[in-house]
Amino acid sequence: MHKKTRVVIVGAGFGGLQAAQSLAHTETEVILIDRHNYHTFVPLLYQVATAGLSPDLIAIPIRNLLRHSLNTKFLKAEVEQIDFAVKLVKTSEGEIPYDFLILAAGSRTQFFGIPGATDYAFPLRTLTDAINLRNQIIHCFEKAEGELDDAKRQQLLTIAIVGGGATGVELAGALVELVLGSLQKDYPRLNPQEVKLILLQSGERLLVEFAPSLGKYTYRKLRQLGVQVMLNSKVCQVSADGVGLQDDVWLPAATVIWSVGLAGALPNSSATPTQTRKGKIKVLPSLQASEYPEVFVIGDLAHIEHNQKPLAGVAPEALQQGVFVARNIQRRLRGKELKPFSYFNKGRLAIIGCYSGVGKIGAFKLTGFLPWFMWLAVHLVYLPDWRNRLLILLSWLHAYILGDRSVRLILST
Amino acid sequence: MHKKTRVVIVGAGFGGLQAAQSLAHTETEVILIDRHNYHTFVPLLYQVATAGLSPDLIAIPIRNLLRHSLNTKFLKAEVEQIDFAVKLVKTSEGEIPYDFLILAAGSRTQFFGIPGATDYAFPLRTLTDAINLRNQIIHCFEKAEGELDDAKRQQLLTIAIVGGGATGVELAGALVELVLGSLQKDYPRLNPQEVKLILLQSGERLLVEFAPSLGKYTYRKLRQLGVQVMLNSKVCQVSADGVGLQDDVWLPAATVIWSVGLAGALPNSSATPTQTRKGKIKVLPSLQASEYPEVFVIGDLAHIEHNQKPLAGVAPEALQQGVFVARNIQRRLRGKELKPFSYFNKGRLAIIGCYSGVGKIGAFKLTGFLPWFMWLAVHLVYLPDWRNRLLILLSWLHAYILGDRSVRLILST
Repeated sequence: MHKKTRVVIVGAGFGGLQAAQSLAHTETEVILIDRHNYHTFVPLLYQVATAGLSPDLIAIPIRNLLRHSLNTKFLKAEVEQIDFAVKLVKTSEGEIPYDFLILAAGSRTQFFGIPGATDYAFPLRTLTDAINLRNQIIHCFEKAEGELDDAKRQQLLTIAIVGGGATGVELAGALVELVLGSLQKDYPRLNPQEVKLILLQSGERLLVEFAPSLGKYTYRKLRQLGVQVMLNSKVCQVSADGVGLQDDVWLPAATVIWSVGLAGALPNSSATPTQTRKGKIKVLPSLQASEYPEVFVIGDLAHIEHNQKPLAGVAPEALQQGVFVARNIQRRLRGKELKPFSYFNKGRLAIIGCYSGVGKIGAFKLTGFLPWFMWLAVHLVYLPDWRNRLLILLSWLHAYILGDRSVRLILST
Repeated sequence: MHKKTRVVIVGAGFGGLQAAQSLAHTETEVILIDRHNYHTFVPLLYQVATAGLSPDLIAIPIRNLLRHSLNTKFLKAEVEQIDFAVKLVKTSEGEIPYDFLILAAGSRTQFFGIPGATDYAFPLRTLTDAINLRNQIIHCFEKAEGELDDAKRQQLLTIAIVGGGATGVELAGALVELVLGSLQKDYPRLNPQEVKLILLQSGERLLVEFAPSLGKYTYRKLRQLGVQVMLNSKVCQVSADGVGLQDDVWLPAATVIWSVGLAGALPNSSATPTQTRKGKIKVLPSLQASEYPEVFVIGDLAHIEHNQKPLAGVAPEALQQGVFVARNIQRRLRGKELKPFSYFNKGRLAIIGCYSGVGKIGAFKLTGFLPWFMWLAVHLVYLPDWRNRLLILLSWLHAYILGDRSVRLILST
């Protein structure tokens, strides 16, 4: 019997999962490896962190998504080492040889060596991060209600967000919704005026990946919602009590959220392919690692340029690369030339919250309700599970009709 | 200004929460203390453990439930000591003096000193227990798929449930649903015949709190569903590999679930009121602790007899006691005589799963579909939150229409 070509995929994020699904009905044997048994729908993490959605709704069992992919095996395992020379992935559950390898291991949070950041800042990259952040925020409100010392109470009620990109902005907006909607009802003895949300941006405008006018709109909108936006503010230190900026400015804050700095998360390897400063792997236009033609790299781990700029690391990029890499592997199997990847940019949206968003679609810049609504609609459509899609829709209707965020649990295992 | 009478309630389970709600519009000041910021809807824990429901759906933020109780404060704190002599509850968040105390601290799992039980058996009393059990079950299936050794794989696929009461029976049934519905689809390479569910009962019949005929029906039904029911089987040892019975019988099982043995969970106290063998406090017919007339004890922590038998520790008992104790405190405040508690038994239902249940309502014994349906309907009605009620209903419809249990996550924080 002819032995099937084996494609091993490391990582079941947007790119890896899509690659597996695109290889579903081909003559290959696919092994998809992830350390979790679920796919995390990362764009909605901030809603879990702000008690709007249940964590389970954005964690979809991977085996659910592969039920119709009969040539695909899922392996829940930690990747311990990749040996490019002998084409072998060593995992906690055994060694897996490959003919082709798709590296889709995603990113990890980068703290840039800022003192205290690793220990005290709350990142928001994984589901566990989101649950931890939710626990922290609700915990601080619980503590604040009984705190008689004014300064301490103010500190408990201050949340500083480091990073004015899409994640920082959507977190700030969602926290406004949480405070206005639920916490006032929950803590009638707290003065909502004491709650302070600070958004710290090192550069001179928000949402640098969008046009300056959209960044300015976002700035005005967040200020109007009561968020204290501080531009040109570089974080130098983080502690359990607050965050330090340049020029010895100290902001007391019980919660410091880290929404900057994603670096490529290359698994431990026998040799390191050429990497960029952000730990991403430089790939050929075909998405092959230049040193290893049977290794493809996609998603956050790949450094790919589009119009002379590196891709931003959003889901549509990874999804398109997942489809593309599956096709390139099939081309190779049929002895054809590999094609170069090119990203088709359908536009980009960012949500602010409180019925506002910004976006650019083709030549059109959008602000206000329309991009807000489109953001939610697009993400609902992209969520890869009907049941969760319905439950999320209901959660949103409930939240917006009743002005309430319902998953305000301090739940630790 | 006249100082209000302060009622402190320890525990926000069914009894404590109901007492707080019943005291809502009275001339008292109520402080409700719990270590969690959510109320756990315990009857549905087994569905969380078997991946049918999201944990968040049965954890309802306590402050949600107290929004209309303006005289009630919630305090998230650990109770460190109760000083009955000076009427003081010492908590992790400070000392709270009381005029009346309602002890509704519930129960804890009892392992009866059986070697290994504390370390290796999975209890099912808290939300964390349920999540841990879910993680364990799915983890074992993941491991089993890659396990080539037949004996080891068989062990990974064996779940032993210790205790043939309502919890053990409903767990066994729900596990059948999980295995038949989802796991076959998820693990096409596993032989479902290898999955082994064992229900161990020390006595000679299941569901001892029901009539013998209902226990026999349950026995037949579970056997028919493929559960290996072992009566007269006393557990002598638990290890990571299995469970040991009397007469040196050893059953290899990667998962041992502990669904027996609840004891009253009296917080650390200055003096110990008279307790029963199960750690429950003996109360007067008025539900007062006999030594301390200003202390009332309700729910699982109270030893109350009904028709010469102790109450069983189900939710309706605690709910009725919560209402009753609020009224007795008001009677005392108005200088009236306290009344004796009497339980109004509306009947009792137990769910087996796979469209079967048993029940006794008045003189009627029920088996089959009707008590199954009633069990689900009654619990949906008693769930104290509209949003969660709707989402649970949808989860059930999804599960029963598609034969699927969707929350199959291994999610640890």
